[in-house]
Amino acid sequence: MAQLLDVPPGLRGVAAAETAIGDVRGGEGFYHYRQYDAIQLSRQRAFEEVWCLLRDGELPNPRQLAAFTGRVAQARALPANVARALPAVAALSTDDQPLQALRAAFELLALDRHMLPWIDIDDAALDDQAITTAAVFPTLVVALHRLKRGQRLIEPRADLGHAANYLYMLTGQAPAPARARALESYLTSTIDHGFNASTFTARVVASTGADLGSAVIAALGALSGPLHGGAPSRVLDMLDAIDSPGRADRWIRDTLTSGGKLMGFGHPVYQTTDPRNTMLRAIAEELGSPRLDLAVQVEQLALRALRELRPGVPIYANVEYYAAIVLDAVGLPRELFTPTFAISRVIGWTAHITEQARHNKIFRPSARYVGPPPMASDPLPAAPQPPQVGAGQL
Amino acid sequence: MAQLLDVPPGLRGVAAAETAIGDVRGGEGFYHYRQYDAIQLSRQRAFEEVWCLLRDGELPNPRQLAAFTGRVAQARALPANVARALPAVAALSTDDQPLQALRAAFELLALDRHMLPWIDIDDAALDDQAITTAAVFPTLVVALHRLKRGQRLIEPRADLGHAANYLYMLTGQAPAPARARALESYLTSTIDHGFNASTFTARVVASTGADLGSAVIAALGALSGPLHGGAPSRVLDMLDAIDSPGRADRWIRDTLTSGGKLMGFGHPVYQTTDPRNTMLRAIAEELGSPRLDLAVQVEQLALRALRELRPGVPIYANVEYYAAIVLDAVGLPRELFTPTFAISRVIGWTAHITEQARHNKIFRPSARYVGPPPMASDPLPAAPQPPQVGAGQL
Repeated sequence: MAQLLDVPPGLRGVAAAETAIGDVRGGEGFYHYRQYDAIQLSRQRAFEEVWCLLRDGELPNPRQLAAFTGRVAQARALPANVARALPAVAALSTDDQPLQALRAAFELLALDRHMLPWIDIDDAALDDQAITTAAVFPTLVVALHRLKRGQRLIEPRADLGHAANYLYMLTGQAPAPARARALESYLTSTIDHGFNASTFTARVVASTGADLGSAVIAALGALSGPLHGGAPSRVLDMLDAIDSPGRADRWIRDTLTSGGKLMGFGHPVYQTTDPRNTMLRAIAEELGSPRLDLAVQVEQLALRALRELRPGVPIYANVEYYAAIVLDAVGLPRELFTPTFAISRVIGWTAHITEQARHNKIFRPSARYVGPPPMASDPLPAAPQPPQVGAGQL
Repeated sequence: MAQLLDVPPGLRGVAAAETAIGDVRGGEGFYHYRQYDAIQLSRQRAFEEVWCLLRDGELPNPRQLAAFTGRVAQARALPANVARALPAVAALSTDDQPLQALRAAFELLALDRHMLPWIDIDDAALDDQAITTAAVFPTLVVALHRLKRGQRLIEPRADLGHAANYLYMLTGQAPAPARARALESYLTSTIDHGFNASTFTARVVASTGADLGSAVIAALGALSGPLHGGAPSRVLDMLDAIDSPGRADRWIRDTLTSGGKLMGFGHPVYQTTDPRNTMLRAIAEELGSPRLDLAVQVEQLALRALRELRPGVPIYANVEYYAAIVLDAVGLPRELFTPTFAISRVIGWTAHITEQARHNKIFRPSARYVGPPPMASDPLPAAPQPPQVGAGQL
C-alpha cells in the first residue's frame, strides 16, 4: 500500500498551494492583497482599482483604469436568452436560499456564454470569462430580487461604478455618493481572504481544467454553507431579537448558557480583532445608522459575557458584525446581504481560478481507509437472488 | 507568522480525510466498496444492492432491497415546476457541455425541493436528499436529451431497475436484459473511486455545512474538467478518426510524436491494468460490438507504441477505453456517455457527503504566499484620483 501523509483534520495549517494574490496574518490582525494592506486599499482606492490589482498584480494607471471600468460596464447587461429564462428561476427560489438562486441564474448565463474549459482556451479568453462573470453578478442578484417582487428590471447604467450601479439597479435612483462609497469599501475589504472553503473549492474545481463558471458555481455552494460564514443578515436578526440595550445582557447570557451562538463573533484565523470589522465600524459611524448604538452596546456586552462564559477562548467580533450595520445603512435589504458578499468575493475567486490555471496541478489527495478490511480474493456472500434488471422486473 | 506544513503539489499522497466507503490500491490494480471487491460486486450484484451497500455499509437483505428499490422508483419523476422550466435549460445547452446542462437542470430541482443545509436537518432528511438526488439524475439526463431533439418526455417506469429504466426513458422501449445488465455492471463499477477531484470537491463543499445539492453541483463542475477524466466518448471519437486497423499504427505514432494524447490511456493512481477496464472488455465481448475488433487492435498497438515512444512510463488503458465500447453497445448515444458516468458517480458523491456530515471538520487549508512582501505600515502610492463612485461619475 502506498504511504499516506497524515495532516491535521480539515487540512488546517497545510500549504495546499502557493499564491501571490494575498495573505492573512491571523495573529497580527492584518491581511493584504498583493503587496498592499487590504484595509488601506478599501479606505483609499476605488473598487475597480483594487479589482485590477487582484487581476494584474499592480494598481492601474488612469488609462488602464478607464479601459477596465469600460469593459466591466459593458458586461453588465443580461443576454436576452438569460433574461427570458430568469423568471422561472425567480419563481422557484426563496429569500432564505439566495446563493442557490444566484447560482441557478448564473448557470443559465454560463450556458448561454458557452464557457469553455480554461485548458482549451488562451489567457485572454479566460480573463474575459473572469471579468464578464464578476461584472454581471450584481445584475443577476438584483434581477432575481425584483422579479420575485413582481417588479420590472432596471437596465444597468454604464456611467456608474460597480457599487453605485448595483444600488441604482435596485431602486432606479442613483445612490448618494457617501452610501456608494461605503458599499465600495465593504466590497473591497471582502474580495479575498486566504484559502477559506469557497476559495479553496474554486481552486480545486479549476485544477481539473474546468471552465471558470464551473469553479465559481462550486464556490457559491461552499459559501452557502453555514460554517463558512458570509451571512451578515444573521447579525441583524440577532439585534432585532435583542430589541433594546436593556434586554441585551440577559439575551446574550441566556443564549450562551443554553449552548446557542452569537452571530458575528469568532473567526477561524484571527486571534485578535478582525481588521475589517474595525474599518466597518468606523464607516458605520461616519455614515450614521439607527442601529449603531445598539450594535456597539451588544458588542461590548457580548465580549464581556464571552470572556466570562467561554474563558480561555479569544473571541472577537468578526467581519459580519459591522458589515450588517453598513449594508443596512447603505439601503440594502437584509435578504441581499449574502449575495452582496458574493458580489465581492467572486472577484477573489476568479483571481484564484486564473492563478490556479497558470500554475496548475490537479488536486487529487488520498483518503485513509478506516473501514473493515476488504476480502480481496474471497467470494461475495450469496446473493439473495440473481441480479434481475430486464423489462417487467424490479 | 504561523508555521505552514508543506505537502506535495495537488495534495498528492496526503490523507485529506478518513473514509470507510472504499479504497483504491493502485499498485495492486484493486479497489473495493466497503469490505467487498468492487469488480465482484459489479459482476454479481444488482446495481441497487451496491447502492445500498455504499449508503448503509452492508448489503441489503431481500426485504431491505425491495423497500429501497421502491423508494428510488418513487423519486424518479420530475416535479411539474421543474418539467416546465426544463425547456429553457435545454434551449441554452449544447451537446458538448452535457454536465453543465445537467447541472443547470439539477439546480432547478434543488431549488424546487428547497434542500436545506445538512447542518440544519437530521440524518433521515439528509438520507432522503441523497436518494432523491441520485434517483432523479437519469430522468434529468434523458429529459434534456429528448427536449433538445424536440421529442416528448417519457415517464419513468417504477417496475424497472435504475439502469433498465434509464434506457427505457431514452427510447420508450424496455431494453433487452443483457443490455440492461451490461449497463448495470458499468454503473456499479464507477460509483466510487477514492478521493478523485470531484469526490474531494463534494466533501469540501459539504464540510461547510451546505446542502447536499450544493455539494453535488460543485462535484459536477469538477467532473466536467478535462483533467478529471470521465469522458469515454473521446475514445469513440478517436476510434472513428483511426477508422480501420490498417491505419491504426500510423495514426497512433503520428499522434504521439506530435505531442498528442491517446484517449483512454493512463491513470493517476493505477500503476497496472485498471481492473474496471478488464471487466468492461469482457462485458463487451459477451455483449458483442461492431467496434470491438478495432478497439482491441488499437489497444495492442497503442500499448506497444507507448512502450517505445514513452519508455519508463507505465501506461495502460483506463476505464474510459472499454467503457466507450460497452456504452455504445448498450445503445447509448455518445453525447450521453459523460452524463451516464455522472449517473453512477453521484451515488458515490452522496455517500461521501453523508459521511463527511457525520464526521465533519471544515476544510480550510492555508496557502503559501509567494508574492512581493506587503508594506504593512507604509502608505499606498498616491491615487491617480480620489475614488469617485456617485451618480454621473464612472
